[in-house]
Amino acid sequence: MTLYKAPLDDQRFALFDVLDAETVLTKLQGGDGHTRDLLDAVLEEAGKLSEQVLAPTNSPGDEEGCHYDKATRSVTTPKGFKEAFRQFSEGGWAGLTMAEAFGGQALPSVMGVATTEFFQSGNLSWSLYPLLSEGACHALEMHGTEDQQHTYLKPIVAGEWTGTMCLTEPQAGSDLGLLKTRAEPVGDGSYKITGTKIFISAGDHDLAENIIHLVLARLPDAPAGSRGISMFIVPKFKVKDGKPGERNNVYAGAIEHKMGIRGSATCVMNFDEAEGFLIGQPHKGLAAMFTMMNAARLSVGVQGLALSERAWQNSLNYARERLQSRSLSGPKFPDKPADNLLVQPDVRRMLLTQRALVEGSRMLLLYSALQTDIEARGADEATRQKASELLAFLIPIAKGVVTELAQECTKEALQVYGGHGFIVENGVEQFVRDARIITLYEGTTGIQAADLLGRKILQLKGVGLQHFLAEVGAFCKAHAQDEALRPYIGPLGALAKEWGELTMKLAQLIQTNPEELGAAANDYLYYSGYITLAYFWARAVAAAEKSSQQPAFKQAKRDTAAFFFARVLPRTHLHKAAIEAGVATLPAIA
Amino acid sequence: MTLYKAPLDDQRFALFDVLDAETVLTKLQGGDGHTRDLLDAVLEEAGKLSEQVLAPTNSPGDEEGCHYDKATRSVTTPKGFKEAFRQFSEGGWAGLTMAEAFGGQALPSVMGVATTEFFQSGNLSWSLYPLLSEGACHALEMHGTEDQQHTYLKPIVAGEWTGTMCLTEPQAGSDLGLLKTRAEPVGDGSYKITGTKIFISAGDHDLAENIIHLVLARLPDAPAGSRGISMFIVPKFKVKDGKPGERNNVYAGAIEHKMGIRGSATCVMNFDEAEGFLIGQPHKGLAAMFTMMNAARLSVGVQGLALSERAWQNSLNYARERLQSRSLSGPKFPDKPADNLLVQPDVRRMLLTQRALVEGSRMLLLYSALQTDIEARGADEATRQKASELLAFLIPIAKGVVTELAQECTKEALQVYGGHGFIVENGVEQFVRDARIITLYEGTTGIQAADLLGRKILQLKGVGLQHFLAEVGAFCKAHAQDEALRPYIGPLGALAKEWGELTMKLAQLIQTNPEELGAAANDYLYYSGYITLAYFWARAVAAAEKSSQQPAFKQAKRDTAAFFFARVLPRTHLHKAAIEAGVATLPAIA
Repeated sequence: MTLYKAPLDDQRFALFDVLDAETVLTKLQGGDGHTRDLLDAVLEEAGKLSEQVLAPTNSPGDEEGCHYDKATRSVTTPKGFKEAFRQFSEGGWAGLTMAEAFGGQALPSVMGVATTEFFQSGNLSWSLYPLLSEGACHALEMHGTEDQQHTYLKPIVAGEWTGTMCLTEPQAGSDLGLLKTRAEPVGDGSYKITGTKIFISAGDHDLAENIIHLVLARLPDAPAGSRGISMFIVPKFKVKDGKPGERNNVYAGAIEHKMGIRGSATCVMNFDEAEGFLIGQPHKGLAAMFTMMNAARLSVGVQGLALSERAWQNSLNYARERLQSRSLSGPKFPDKPADNLLVQPDVRRMLLTQRALVEGSRMLLLYSALQTDIEARGADEATRQKASELLAFLIPIAKGVVTELAQECTKEALQVYGGHGFIVENGVEQFVRDARIITLYEGTTGIQAADLLGRKILQLKGVGLQHFLAEVGAFCKAHAQDEALRPYIGPLGALAKEWGELTMKLAQLIQTNPEELGAAANDYLYYSGYITLAYFWARAVAAAEKSSQQPAFKQAKRDTAAFFFARVLPRTHLHKAAIEAGVATLPAIA
Repeated sequence: MTLYKAPLDDQRFALFDVLDAETVLTKLQGGDGHTRDLLDAVLEEAGKLSEQVLAPTNSPGDEEGCHYDKATRSVTTPKGFKEAFRQFSEGGWAGLTMAEAFGGQALPSVMGVATTEFFQSGNLSWSLYPLLSEGACHALEMHGTEDQQHTYLKPIVAGEWTGTMCLTEPQAGSDLGLLKTRAEPVGDGSYKITGTKIFISAGDHDLAENIIHLVLARLPDAPAGSRGISMFIVPKFKVKDGKPGERNNVYAGAIEHKMGIRGSATCVMNFDEAEGFLIGQPHKGLAAMFTMMNAARLSVGVQGLALSERAWQNSLNYARERLQSRSLSGPKFPDKPADNLLVQPDVRRMLLTQRALVEGSRMLLLYSALQTDIEARGADEATRQKASELLAFLIPIAKGVVTELAQECTKEALQVYGGHGFIVENGVEQFVRDARIITLYEGTTGIQAADLLGRKILQLKGVGLQHFLAEVGAFCKAHAQDEALRPYIGPLGALAKEWGELTMKLAQLIQTNPEELGAAANDYLYYSGYITLAYFWARAVAAAEKSSQQPAFKQAKRDTAAFFFARVLPRTHLHKAAIEAGVATLPAIA
C-alpha cells in the first residue's frame, strides 16, 4: 500500500504565492466571491475526499480490475468505486466548475484542475469516470440545444449519470478522418447509429443509472475525411420524462486487458442502430470535439502531475525509512545498523529530480488553468483573446511534456526502492504502469509536438509564444536586481532569447521542407517545456521571498530551483542539437 | 503476441566485422577450433531454439505466471517452461562455455553472451533459470573442491540440476554487510544454515530434479559487516551417490507478485537448520561472490539488449503495418486509406533511437565478453591483465548503461504503438514491465555508477579507462584520413580528450570531499556510456566499408551512426553539466 497526503501547502504556494490567483480570479467577471478563504476550503475538502475515500481504493482497484459479464454485456467496477462515486456526487464535485443554471457550483476552472489533481492522485482509474463526464458536460454546454442540456446535461452535473467520448475506431486513432461509424436519419429527428468504437473509457460501468455517449459518426451525405464527421448523443437508456427508460442498442462488447489503469473500464462499444441525436452542426463534429480538447488535454497533463506527486511522496518516505549502507563521509546514524538512503547524494538526485519536475509541473498546469478562466471571464475582449492564445500555446506543453516527465518521475520513484519497487505489494510499480497510458491517449506525445510546432507556432504565427516570451522578459526585467534571483535571471533571459531565435529559424526551414516539422517537433516540445518550467521555477524563488510559508518550505523551493537550473535545464542543449540536426538524420527506413 | 527473429546478421556484423572475433578467439590458448564456421553454426542453432521454442512461451508465461503450492511449499513454472528447459539441456546449452572436464562444450564466453541474448529475447523469465545455474557453475568452478565440483557442478553443467545465488535478505540488499543468516558447524564437516533470503530467482521450480543453493551466511566466529560472510552449498535434496536423496530443510516460503518477469519464480527461501557445506574460505564469501559478479552483471546488461531488440523488432513491424494519417509532404501510399507510420519523421526518430541504442549496446556487450575470453586465455600475462582491467572498467557501463537504455528503448517501442501499446494482447507492454527489473537487480544503477567512479576510476586509478582511451586514440589515428569516418573522428577524439580531463578534475574534487563521488557518479556513468557507444558506432562505420553484408544493411549502419552522433551523443553535454554542478546542488532533504 502507498501513502498519500494532498499537497495542500504546495498547491497554495503555487496558486496564491506564485500565481496570485486570488487577485486574478476576483477581478474576473462573476469572480467577486472567489476569495482565498473560499478556495482554500474547497481544496481542503477535496484533499480529504481523496485521502480518505479515493486513495485507499487505488491499489485494491488495480488488483481486482473491472469485471465484464458476457451474458448482460455489462461492466462492474472494483469494490469501493461505486461508494466513492456516491460521495463525490453528493459533495457536489461533479458540477464543481459547471454553471449554476445547470446545477453546478460555478467555481473557476483552476479549482477544477487543482481538485482533480488530488482525485487523480487518489485513484487515477476511478477519476477517469468523472473526467469523461466532465468532457461530455463541456460538449453539451457548448453545442447542445437547451432541450438537450435540460435532458442530458443536468443529470450529469448532478453526478446521477455519467458521459463518454466515443471517438477511436480500430482503423482510426490519431487520424479520426478514417472513422466509419454511420448515422442514418430516421425521419423523426433521431438517427440510427451503427459502428464499433474502441478504447472508450467509462463506456460501461455500475456507478450511475445512465450513461450519455457522445459519438462521432458520419451522416449519409458526409464528405470523406475529417470534414464529414458529426457528433451524436447516444444514451445507454433512452430518456423518458427525465428518467432512464428503454435500453438503447449500445453495448460494451468487451473490456481491454491493460498494462495499467486497470480499475478503469476501457470498453469496446458496439452501436447497432442505436438511437442517437445530432448535437451541433452536421459535419462539424470534429471541430466541436476540438473545442473540448484544451480541457481534456490539460486534465491528462494533471494526471501526470498527480501520479508523479504520489510516487514522489512514497519514494521520499521510503528513502527516509530504509536503512542501508553508510554515508560516503562516515556514519550519520551511528546508533542504527545503517544510515538511511537520504544520506546518499545519488538518492537525493533522484528525489530532487522528482520534486523539481512535480512542483514545476504544478505551477505550469495551474497557470494554464488560470488562462482558461481569463479566457472565459476576463474583463475585456483583448484580455480574453490573449489568455486564449496563451492557453492554446501552453496546452501541448502541459499535456505533452508533463505526461512524459511523469514517465521519468515514476521511474525514478521506483528506482529509489531498489528491488522492492518491483514488488506489487509495495505499490510504486502501479504508478509506473498507470503513467504509461497518459503519453498515449488524448493525443500521443507526437501529436502534441506536432500541435505545438505545426499549429501553435507555424499556423498561428507563434502568437502564444510571443505572449509567453513577453511575460518572461517582463519578469526578468522586474527582477534584474533581485539578489535571490541572480543565478537564474541571466540563464532564463538567454534561453528565452534563444527560444525565439531558434523558432524563427525553424519556421523558415520548415517552409522549404515540410518534413522538417516532423523531424524537429518532439525535441522542440521538450525544449519549450524545460524553458517554461525554468520560468516558473524562477517565479517560485521570487515568490518564496514574500511567502508566508515556513522557512524550511521556502528553503526547499530555493534548493529545488537551484537543482533544476543546474541539473535539468541543460537538457535544452541536447534538444537544441537534435532540432538543428534536421530531417537529414532521419532517413527512410525500409 | 509478438514476433521475434534472432538478429543473426547484426550479431555476425558485430562479432566478425566490427570486433574481428575470429582472429581474436583463434589466437587464444585452446582457441584453435573456434573458427567463424563453428561459431556461426552455434549462433544459428541458438537462434532456432529461441525463435521456435522459447519465444512462443513468453507472453503466455507472463499471463500464467508461476504457481506456489502452500501445502508442499513448491513452485510450478508456466506451461512450456519445463519442455523448453529439457530441449535446452539436451542441446548442451547449459554447459556451453564450461570446461570439458565438467562436461561442458568449452566454447568462448563471448558465445555464451551472444547466445544468451537470443534466449533472453525469447523469454527473459525463462532464461533466468539457466542464468542462475551459470552463476552457480562459476562459483563451484572457481571455489569448489574437486569433490564438490564432481558432486554438484557436473549435474548442473549437464542441465540436470540448477543452481541459485542466495544473497539478499529483507534488511540487506545493496548492503550485504547487514546480512544475518547463520551457519553453525555440526562437527562432521557440515553446517546448519538458518535464515531467510528474499528475491531468490529460481529458488524453487519444477524444471530439474535438484537445486543447488549457494548461500551467504555468517559463521559463529564471524567478524561483523561484509568481512564476516561465508559461502555455503545447500542442496534442495541432499546428494547420495550422486543422486538427489533426502529432502533438505530449505523451502520456498512464498513467491513474489511482481511487475514483470512473472514467469520467473522469485522466492522467499527459508533455511531452517538446512544442511550446508562451506565453499571457499571462511569469511571470504563476499569476495568469492564478487569474482562471479562480472559475468552476472554482463548477463544482465545483455538482458537489456535482449528486451530492447525484441521490442524494436515489433515496433518497426508495427510502424510498417499500421496505416494512419498522411506524410507531411503529401501521400506516399495514395492507393491506401492512409500512409504507414514510417513516413512520419518523428516515428523514424523513435525507431532510430532504438536501433542506435540496441546495435550500439550489442557491440559494447560483445566487446566486453571478448575481454572475458582474453582475460582467461590470452597468450601472455600482460595481455590477460590488460583485458581484465578493461573488462572491470566496462562492466558497470555494460550493466548500468545498457539496462537504463533498455528502459528508454522499450518505452519508445511501446510509444510507436500509440494506445494499442497499452493493451496486454499486443505484447509490447510486457517488455516495458520486464525491463523494469534489470536496473535494480545485480546492483542498481546507483551501485554500478558508484562501482565505475569509486572503484574502477578512483581506487584502480583509472587503468581501465586509460586502456580504453588509448584504444579510441589509436582508432582515431588509424582512421584520420578515412572519408567515411570524417564526421565522427573529430567529435569522438574531442570527447575522448574531454573524458580524460573531466575524470582527472573529478578525481581531485572527490579527494577534497567524498560526497562529490555520489553527486557525480550517475551522470559520469551515462557520460561514459555515450562516449563508449560513440566509439563502437564509429567502428561500425569503419567495419561497414569492408563488410560482406548487403548494401542496404551497410547503409543502415551509416545512417544509424549519423543519427547517433547527431541526436544521441549530445546528451554528454547534459551529463557533463550535471557532473560539474557538484554536491552543492544536492543539499540535505529533511
